[in-house]
Amino acid sequence: MKVNIGKKILTTNEEYAAKNRQILSEKKKFCLNMISSPGSGKTTILSRTITELKGKIKIGVIEGDIQTDIDTQRIMATGAPAVQLNTDGACHLSALQVNAALKKLPLDGLDLIFIENVGNLVCPSAFELGENAKIVVLSVAEGDDKPAKYPAIFAKSKVLLINKIDLLKTAGQVDFDIERAKTDARRLNRNIEIFPVSARTGEGFADWCNWLIKAVKNQKH
Amino acid sequence: MKVNIGKKILTTNEEYAAKNRQILSEKKKFCLNMISSPGSGKTTILSRTITELKGKIKIGVIEGDIQTDIDTQRIMATGAPAVQLNTDGACHLSALQVNAALKKLPLDGLDLIFIENVGNLVCPSAFELGENAKIVVLSVAEGDDKPAKYPAIFAKSKVLLINKIDLLKTAGQVDFDIERAKTDARRLNRNIEIFPVSARTGEGFADWCNWLIKAVKNQKH
Repeated sequence: MKVNIGKKILTTNEEYAAKNRQILSEKKKFCLNMISSPGSGKTTILSRTITELKGKIKIGVIEGDIQTDIDTQRIMATGAPAVQLNTDGACHLSALQVNAALKKLPLDGLDLIFIENVGNLVCPSAFELGENAKIVVLSVAEGDDKPAKYPAIFAKSKVLLINKIDLLKTAGQVDFDIERAKTDARRLNRNIEIFPVSARTGEGFADWCNWLIKAVKNQKH
Repeated sequence: MKVNIGKKILTTNEEYAAKNRQILSEKKKFCLNMISSPGSGKTTILSRTITELKGKIKIGVIEGDIQTDIDTQRIMATGAPAVQLNTDGACHLSALQVNAALKKLPLDGLDLIFIENVGNLVCPSAFELGENAKIVVLSVAEGDDKPAKYPAIFAKSKVLLINKIDLLKTAGQVDFDIERAKTDARRLNRNIEIFPVSARTGEGFADWCNWLIKAVKNQKH
């Protein structure tokens, strides 16, 4: 007897992803599922994005981590509402977990919900959470070969944020060819939007924040 | 009906892990399973380790990647034998894949086999490959909160390599408190050996290579 458990799990996840999509669509909220390796700077990007968009877009965050609420504490320090999800070992968030978190967020007062997934460049790309789009973050410290080596998430994402570009200023300290990363990412995904940024210095954030403002506006119409 | 597929898969993996362990033990080869996030510097560490230990220890490498043979090309440029395994989307190597790779390596001429797992700080920690020990690599660019946030692999590893310490020399460019990372890792794993290194400059490699020389010698007796 062959039992196709893999398919069953995905179907349950898809059911909840559809529920989440409906909640977000009815309330006209824009939702982004942020995926990257551990330590690429997702939380720092979110903190700066929230601060730079204060008074323009109201942002809430769902924080996914295996353990700890370190990231939720960091987000709440910016004044934005945040809900922590701990997966206790699981390598990605599920739509069921996100469904519970959406109920805890003050959705009516928000324009944009970021889901910060578990730090993992592989598994989260296979699980829809009900988001409008996926965003992949790659830091220059990780190397420019990552789109070629981990293609799935680059193929599925609407936006690629190339973070920590401040590390490129010191000659010879970090080898990262931005053009190679862009070319490889676009080979997988012709329409991917690419923003080189530094969450530490704020470089590149104007373009990224303008993209968010437009995306949120489109969602409301 | 409840079908416990999770357990079954692990058991098949365990069977092959036991086979691998037997092959390595009979031939008195020392084998390390290297695990980290994408881009922490595993391949660069291996290249420098092979070069620094030339004439002392004969090293072979099993390279795990989702796609491409970029890393195997880099290892073979050092003159060491290497076998590429592509998982085609899977987030970790399996013991079955490693079993096939062990048969392709010139084992009799080697002292030490490194398995470079798929870049993923979560999933590979749950799958034994038949190795003598796991090694976790954390680069300072990833942040000092990673042992707390991704505890499983730090709890299970014999060695923690803290890589890219050259990035700490430029004041204020990378926030990473080595003492915090060490304390958190030792809280999870009292006996973990910790080597701060730079695969770029070679700093810290003397201690790491001495540890390898001793470990290989112990395996032969």
